[in-house]
Order: sequence, then structure tokens, then C-alpha cells
Amino acid sequence: MSEETVSMEGPVCAPALSHTETVVMGHGAGGRMSHQLIQKTFMSAFDNPALRAGDDAAYLESDLHPNLAISTDSHVVFPLFFPGGDIGRLAVCGTVNDVAMLGATPLYLTAGFILEEGLPMETLQRVVASMKAAAEEAGVQIVAGDTKVVQKGKADGLYITTAGVGLVRADLTLGGKQARPGDAVILSGSIGDHGIAVLGARGELGFQSSIQSDVAPLNHMIDAMLNASGNIHVLRDPTRGGLATTLNEIATQSNVGVFLNEETLLIHPQVASACEMLGFDPLYIANEGKLVAFVANQDADRVLRAMRLTRYGRDAVIIGRVSDEPRGRVLLKTTLGTTRIVDMLAGEMLPRIC
Amino acid sequence: MSEETVSMEGPVCAPALSHTETVVMGHGAGGRMSHQLIQKTFMSAFDNPALRAGDDAAYLESDLHPNLAISTDSHVVFPLFFPGGDIGRLAVCGTVNDVAMLGATPLYLTAGFILEEGLPMETLQRVVASMKAAAEEAGVQIVAGDTKVVQKGKADGLYITTAGVGLVRADLTLGGKQARPGDAVILSGSIGDHGIAVLGARGELGFQSSIQSDVAPLNHMIDAMLNASGNIHVLRDPTRGGLATTLNEIATQSNVGVFLNEETLLIHPQVASACEMLGFDPLYIANEGKLVAFVANQDADRVLRAMRLTRYGRDAVIIGRVSDEPRGRVLLKTTLGTTRIVDMLAGEMLPRIC
Repeated sequence: MSEETVSMEGPVCAPALSHTETVVMGHGAGGRMSHQLIQKTFMSAFDNPALRAGDDAAYLESDLHPNLAISTDSHVVFPLFFPGGDIGRLAVCGTVNDVAMLGATPLYLTAGFILEEGLPMETLQRVVASMKAAAEEAGVQIVAGDTKVVQKGKADGLYITTAGVGLVRADLTLGGKQARPGDAVILSGSIGDHGIAVLGARGELGFQSSIQSDVAPLNHMIDAMLNASGNIHVLRDPTRGGLATTLNEIATQSNVGVFLNEETLLIHPQVASACEMLGFDPLYIANEGKLVAFVANQDADRVLRAMRLTRYGRDAVIIGRVSDEPRGRVLLKTTLGTTRIVDMLAGEMLPRIC
Repeated sequence: MSEETVSMEGPVCAPALSHTETVVMGHGAGGRMSHQLIQKTFMSAFDNPALRAGDDAAYLESDLHPNLAISTDSHVVFPLFFPGGDIGRLAVCGTVNDVAMLGATPLYLTAGFILEEGLPMETLQRVVASMKAAAEEAGVQIVAGDTKVVQKGKADGLYITTAGVGLVRADLTLGGKQARPGDAVILSGSIGDHGIAVLGARGELGFQSSIQSDVAPLNHMIDAMLNASGNIHVLRDPTRGGLATTLNEIATQSNVGVFLNEETLLIHPQVASACEMLGFDPLYIANEGKLVAFVANQDADRVLRAMRLTRYGRDAVIIGRVSDEPRGRVLLKTTLGTTRIVDMLAGEMLPRIC
């Protein structure tokens, strides 16, 4: 078997990888194949403690500067505009959120644009205006940028790569390795909205949907949470690969078990219908304005109250608990009363979702 | 006339822009059209002091952290591999150099990859190995990354966007606005090598060339220069748009005149031949391992000596002087004894060169 061949376990049917060892769409889906690509190709070359931590932003300690969080995300969402957002808002919020999830205050963003020849200038200006609005909402400055142009057909309108720099609050060490048995698992709201909104914009739902992407900057909510409790252990946004993949990452990093209660999960009826029709599991659909928090049990209600007072946390709810066993596993107690293993996204599900 | 219509002055024949206001290849060429796009679309939206400074990296002062330099570059060079380098080395060196040009010590890089479905994994691994080697040479860590995959045909193998963060040396304020009448203008070596090497790799020269790209990290040479003199006013790398465009930017930012002496410019014979054949002016060809320095005259020889002791500065030479007049203009004293105005690159010259 080729080293690129992925495990076929998990509820999502991944296409078998060819033995020619080429990049396939699943390598960008944020699930197991993305993880394998990162481990095999990037981690082995660029190995350093910040990368090894395996969080969505790098936590950088040094005597030379206050502790920094640095992150980057490339954005290739198609189409560029979708209900509730666009590639510009996504590019700002995605990076702001990754930096904020380490307990850092995001300060500065950079933006690299790859533009397709023939892109209407008006489209670019709409995207830039959206970035400006999102940056103002998040309270960050876009301080450096770059623009390249490629020939017609060599990009889908435009791609945007943002990087972000934030200052880590003193005495905080949030990260995927910090989950502890007994922690409550809090989710900030509904799941699956972003992915289904983008599918709807592509006309792939087969019905008219009013689902809006949840794309939003979460740093102000995180401020409120960190002010409410000093016992938040992990924060992460369940983007590509969805809630299931994010929880699996954390369970693996912290070597703990995570028990979810399905009946606590908020799924909008239109998202549920779309998933049923298309054969998707909402646990694997990308979100762009949600976070999961692992919080010491005694502080869970306090954090929950703080979240519910914020714009993007009104529907926050405790969805599960952390246990010693089974290590590295996520288990779901279904509404039927059964328990099933929830694995990481195996292959490709929805391409070009962010 | 549409606002997008560019000035046709300058020695390079730019294609007339259509009135449909779309992005054209010239917007990515680093010359006047790129500047207009930046001014009209990005600066007006994201306006802040760091962007307004107009340097290739943002200089960030704050009570919250030591002064930082932050930069980003997207890389779409075609082909991915060329004599003397590849897209990976380019992506590391380009951002390292932009940060270093503000007198900062580059510490951290991020890398966002946009991969084309079907890209051989071996190609990606070669690029990543090249990035690793370049990062080691520059002494920077690649601390965060992201990978997206787009469908076959929607990218040319891969695009890489890097961002970089560096610490600015105490009491330094280098920047494009700091050039002063009387300054010596130093160039670190030959011009045009990178652009012609990439053209050669595309088979567009019509002859076999042994020209190698000069792509290199210049931060160690800059360290040596800053150790040699506290009177360096501007450092910049003449990349897209070439030496002519870079000097025009600085002349405009500092509101000074720049007089160049053509006979001091080092142009490899093969580069000169290629330019003559193809109708290019080497002053407009991209370099990726060169810098220009504006230095107080009394320190020029000392800086020159320090540069010549370093790997990438052996051919450093004084190419000109700064004067009061004509403000915002670059003038070249030709080998024939005449003087001509050297304008900014007007439109497109060599697409996808970095």
C-alpha cells in the first residue's frame, strides 16, 4: 500500500487514493488526509516546537518579545460570495479566529491576493470592502499586502492568503494538549451553517435555502470568556472537517476521551434536511463562526453565561464531557440512546468550502 | 479615459487597458499599474500608518511589543523550478528580504499553500525541501502553515504565500522616505539575472542560457551593513519592476532626485543579449537576491567593504547619488554621455516572474 493511502474508516466515504502519489482534493479537506500530508511533508521538513504543538496558530515564546501567536490561512472558497459572507470576510475572520483561539489578542493581518486576469475590478473592490468591515469588527489592522495576477483560468477569480499576529495574554497556555478529564465541552452555537450556505450558493442543494454562513470574528467573545474564567483549557474553531474532526484532533493531542450528547447539538432544520438529502453528516460540515471550548467543570456555567451575552455566543451550550478513556476517541450518545464512535473526516467531503 | 488607464510614458510598451475595468496581467507586474491598483483599491480601504509608509514591509511601533516588521508575498512563478532556484526558495527569500529591508531581524515565517489537484507529491516535497534549506540559510523558522487544494487547471501546480515577522533593531528607522540629498546609492551586484533565468526556463529565450536566478536571503548581508554604519537610510530589493521601478518608488517617497551612472551597472553578457533580442531593458527586469542601499556619503565606502565580504555582496558597487532635484525623478547618465529619464515600469513586462 502506498503511504498516501488513507484509512477508509469513518462515516464519510473517501475516494481511494491513486498509487501515483499526487495531490487530490481530499488533501485540502481538513480531515485525515490533510493531517497525513502535513505530518509527512511539512512537519518533517519544518519541524519546530510551535509546529509540533499542532494548534491552528503558532505559540511563540522568546526572551526577545512578549509571547506571540501567529497563524495563516489560504482561502479558495467557491463561489466568492455566498449568503452571509464572502471570501474577504472569510479571509479576515479565519485568521483572526485562529490567533484568538490561543488566547491571543489579534493585532495585525497581512493579505496576499492572487487575482485571475479578467476579474472585474468591482468584484475585487467588494471583497476588499468586506475585508475592511470584518477587520474593523475584529479590531485588527491590515498592515501589509501583496498582489499577483495569473492568466485567465489559472485561479477562480481570486484567492486570498491572510496571516495574523497577536499578543498572548500573560499567564495563559491554551492549546489542544490541555484538555483534562472532567472538562466540560462547550459549543458556541449551531453547526453546519457555513458549509451548507456555500453549497446553496453553488446551486447544489436542489432547493431554495435561507441558510446563512456563520462566518464571524470570535475574538471579542473569547475576551469575554477569558475574563470570566482562568480555567479554559482549549479553544478551537471547527472549520474544515467540522466539529467531529476538531474534537478528534483535541482528543488525540490531549490523549483523552470526549463524550458528546447528540441531543444538545443545535442543527438548523434546513441544514439537517440538506445533509439528509445529500448524505452528509452535519458533524463534518465546516463552520466559520463557531468555537468549542474545553473548560474546567466548575467554571463551565460561568463561561456559558459570558458567551451567551455576546453576539456570536447566544446559542452556546454544553455538548459533552472529557473522560480518561477511551484515549484519543470521540464518542456520541445518539438521540436513540446508542453510542457510536465519531471519527475524523476521512477524505474529501465538500471541496473549496473556505 | 477610465481611471484604470495607465500612463504610456516610460520605455516599456504597456498594453492599453480595456475600459471594462478588469484585472489585467500588468496589475501584477509591480510597476505603475500595480501601484495604481494598490492606491485605489487597497490603501483607500485598509488605510493605516504602516501601509501609508509604502515600504515592502510594515513597520509597527507600539507600547505593547518591541517594534516589529511584518510582510507578505504571494508567489505564482512559472515554471516552479528554474536555474538557480524554485518557487520554494523564492517564497522564503522574498519575505525574509522584505522584512530585513526595514532593518529587522526576520524570525518567523508562515506559509500558505494552494495546491493544484494532480500535483505530483514528489514536486511538493522538492519545493518544501527547498524552503527548508532557504529558511535554514536565513535563520528563520516556519512556524505556521495552511494547505488548500483546488481542482485541476485552477492553479499552475502550486502557489505559495509567505508572511514574515521580524524584530526591528533598536533606534533604527529605515524606509523609503529616508533618502537624503548627497546619499550614495549602492547596488549589491548584477541586475536582471532572475527574470532572464525564469524566461530561459520557459524556453522563451531562443538560445541556451547558463544564467542562474540570483534568488537569495539577504538578511545576513544587511546585518553586516548595519554593523558597519548607522547612516544607512533606505534598503530595498529591486524585485518586480526591476531597479528602475524601485528607485522611482524611493525618489517619490523621499521627494528627491536620483542620478545613476550606467557604466557602473553590472549586467551579465547573456542577460544583456537576451534583453537586446527581446526588446527588454535590464533596468526593468526582476531581481530576487539584490538590494539597493541609500547611505550617507561619508559611510558609503565602509558599507561597500562590509557588503563585499559577504556571499551575496561581492559585486557591490556605488551606482549613483541622490540630489535635491529633479524631485521624484530618476535620471541615467548613459555610457554614450547622454542623460535620460528612467521611469517606473508602466505596464506588464514579464508575467509570473515571482
